[in-house]
Amino acid sequence: MKQLILSNVPTGKLEKTDFVLQNAEIPSIEDGEVLVKNILLSIDAANRSWMQGKTYRDAVRAGDIMPTYSIAEVVESNDDRFSKGQIVTGDSVWAEFAAIKGKNLNSCPNIKPLSNLLSLYGIAGLTAYHGLMNVGELKKGETVVVSAAGGSVGLFVGQIAKAMGCRVVGIAGSDEKCSRLVRELNFDSCINYKNGSLLNDLKTECPDGIDVYFDNVGGSILEIVLFRMNMRGRVVCCGAVSQYDGSSPIGPRNLPGLLIVKRLKMEGFIVMDFAKDHLKAIKHMSELKGEGKIKIVEDITEGIENAPDALLKLLGGGNYGKSMVRVFPDPT
Amino acid sequence: MKQLILSNVPTGKLEKTDFVLQNAEIPSIEDGEVLVKNILLSIDAANRSWMQGKTYRDAVRAGDIMPTYSIAEVVESNDDRFSKGQIVTGDSVWAEFAAIKGKNLNSCPNIKPLSNLLSLYGIAGLTAYHGLMNVGELKKGETVVVSAAGGSVGLFVGQIAKAMGCRVVGIAGSDEKCSRLVRELNFDSCINYKNGSLLNDLKTECPDGIDVYFDNVGGSILEIVLFRMNMRGRVVCCGAVSQYDGSSPIGPRNLPGLLIVKRLKMEGFIVMDFAKDHLKAIKHMSELKGEGKIKIVEDITEGIENAPDALLKLLGGGNYGKSMVRVFPDPT
Repeated sequence: MKQLILSNVPTGKLEKTDFVLQNAEIPSIEDGEVLVKNILLSIDAANRSWMQGKTYRDAVRAGDIMPTYSIAEVVESNDDRFSKGQIVTGDSVWAEFAAIKGKNLNSCPNIKPLSNLLSLYGIAGLTAYHGLMNVGELKKGETVVVSAAGGSVGLFVGQIAKAMGCRVVGIAGSDEKCSRLVRELNFDSCINYKNGSLLNDLKTECPDGIDVYFDNVGGSILEIVLFRMNMRGRVVCCGAVSQYDGSSPIGPRNLPGLLIVKRLKMEGFIVMDFAKDHLKAIKHMSELKGEGKIKIVEDITEGIENAPDALLKLLGGGNYGKSMVRVFPDPT
Repeated sequence: MKQLILSNVPTGKLEKTDFVLQNAEIPSIEDGEVLVKNILLSIDAANRSWMQGKTYRDAVRAGDIMPTYSIAEVVESNDDRFSKGQIVTGDSVWAEFAAIKGKNLNSCPNIKPLSNLLSLYGIAGLTAYHGLMNVGELKKGETVVVSAAGGSVGLFVGQIAKAMGCRVVGIAGSDEKCSRLVRELNFDSCINYKNGSLLNDLKTECPDGIDVYFDNVGGSILEIVLFRMNMRGRVVCCGAVSQYDGSSPIGPRNLPGLLIVKRLKMEGFIVMDFAKDHLKAIKHMSELKGEGKIKIVEDITEGIENAPDALLKLLGGGNYGKSMVRVFPDPT
C-alpha cells in the first residue's frame, strides 16, 4: 500500500519535499485495534500546526506517517464495537490502510456522499456551528465577520450566520473567491484582504461595526479587525493559519488593550469540546440545508499521493470549500 | 488655586515637563454643575492610556487640565442632589477646585479615612473584586497569578484570592515588593520579573499550572504567562501598563494560537461595568477586612503640585499600594 511520511519537520514554509511517498505492507492489528481502509482524508490548516509542537494532540515528528482525520471503512476488527464494512471516522494517517485503536474511532451515520461527513455534517460544519452558537453567542441582527471565508469552515460560518438573520462579511484572499461567496452563498459582502485596505473596507462593509469575529487566521488580520469591533463583541478563536506556516509569528499589538477598552471576549475552542451537542447541531444544519439556506461546497483532490499538494494548496489559500483527499471510492 | 495642565501629549515616555503647574481662578458653576474641593486624586495607570487616544473616555489633549478620578467635598451646588459639605466621587481634574456636572458625581458613604474610598472600597478594591469574581469566575483551590502585584489593584487581587482559598503568586518588579507581598499580605509567592527567568519561575511557583491570570500589564509578561495557563483558564484583562508609556507596543506572539490549544478565555472589563454589584462587593470585602484577611495599603503623595511625580512613579512601578495624591486634609 501507499503511505506518506513527514520526512522533515519544516521550520519555515512547508514544502512538498518535506514528505516522502513510500510503499509499505498493510499493517496487522493487535488487541483492541481496527484495520481500516481510508476513503477520504480531511485536509486542515491544523495539520500544519501539529508540526510546530504539542497542541491538543502530540506533535508530528520527522519519520511519522502524517496523521489526519479521516472517513474510513472497517476491513478487520479486534474491537467488539466495530465490524467489517462499517464506516467510521477518527484519527488516521496518510496511508491507504491503517491500524487504529478502536477507542479513537467513531461509527458514522450512512450519509451519501461520504464526503458530507467531513464538510457540513463533520468537522467543518460542526466547527462553524458550535463556534458561532456556543462560543460566539450569536444573536439575530448582529454583524458577523469571518476570515478564510472561502475555506472549509468559513463558508459554513457565513451561511449559518446568514440563516440566523445576521449581516455577514467575509474576508478572503482573492477577488474570485469573494465574488463566489456573495453570488453563490449569499454573503452580504466579502473583502479581498490582499487589496491592502482592510481597515477601510471593514468600515464601509460593516457600517454598524462588528459584533462577532470568527477568526481562522490570527496575525495582522486579527489586529485590524479588532479595531472595528463593537463594545462587548466576541472573537471566536478557531484557527491562526497565518501563523502556522512561517517562522516569525506576529502578535496583534492592540491586545490586550482593546479587549479592555471595548470589553471584548476572546475564546478558543476545538470542535470536540462540543461533542455532546453534535447531533443537535447536525439536525439543525440539515434543516437549514433542506430549506436551501446552506449549500455544501467541497474541494476534493484525487489520489493519496496528492495529499501534500492538497495541504500546500490549503495553506496558500487556494482551496474553496472543505478540502479533502480521496483515497478510495465510496463503497456502493 | 493651583491646577496642572498637560502641556504636551507624549509620544514616548511621559516626562514631568509634559505638565505645567498654573495658578488659576476658582471656577464658577453653571446650571447642573457642582463646585468641588478635591481632597484626594486617584493616580492610575489608565491616566497614561487616556493620553494615547479615545478609550472608554475622550482622549486627553494638549492644554487640558489633567483629568482624574477623585474624592472631593461639595463647596457649592447647582444640582439638587448635592449640597455643601457632602463628600462625592467622580471625574474631576488635577486642580484644587473643579466645576463638575452633577451627573458625573456620586455621593459617598462616610468612611474614615476617606482614602479607603479610593483603595479597598473604591476603584482599586472593586476592580480587583469584580475582575476575579465576575470576569475570572474564580473557584476555590485554583491557582491565581497577578501582575503588578504590589500595585493599586494587584495587592487586593492577591488578598481576595487568598481569602477565597486559592494559591496566589504575584509578579512584581522588585525583590523588596515581592518579599513584602509574601510577608505582609500572605501571598504564597511572588516573582520579580526583572530577574529574567519568569517562565521557569512560574513553573516552580505554580506546580499545578495557572487557572486565572489577572493581567495588569500586557506585553511580554502576558506572553510568558500564557505558556503556563491550564486548559480552560481565564485571563482577566484589566490593564496593559507595559504598553501605555512607550511608542512600540508588543503583541503577544502566542495569541490567538494558545487560546485555541488551551481553550482559554480572555476578557476585558472596567470597574464601572459592574456598578450594580458594588454594594455587595463592598460588604463582602468589608467582612474579609474585619476577619483580618485583607489589609489596606495606600501610597499617598502629599500636595497637588506633586501629582506628576506620583504618576511617573506609578508608571515606573515605584508605588506599593493604591496610589493617590492628597490635595486637602479630610474634613473633620
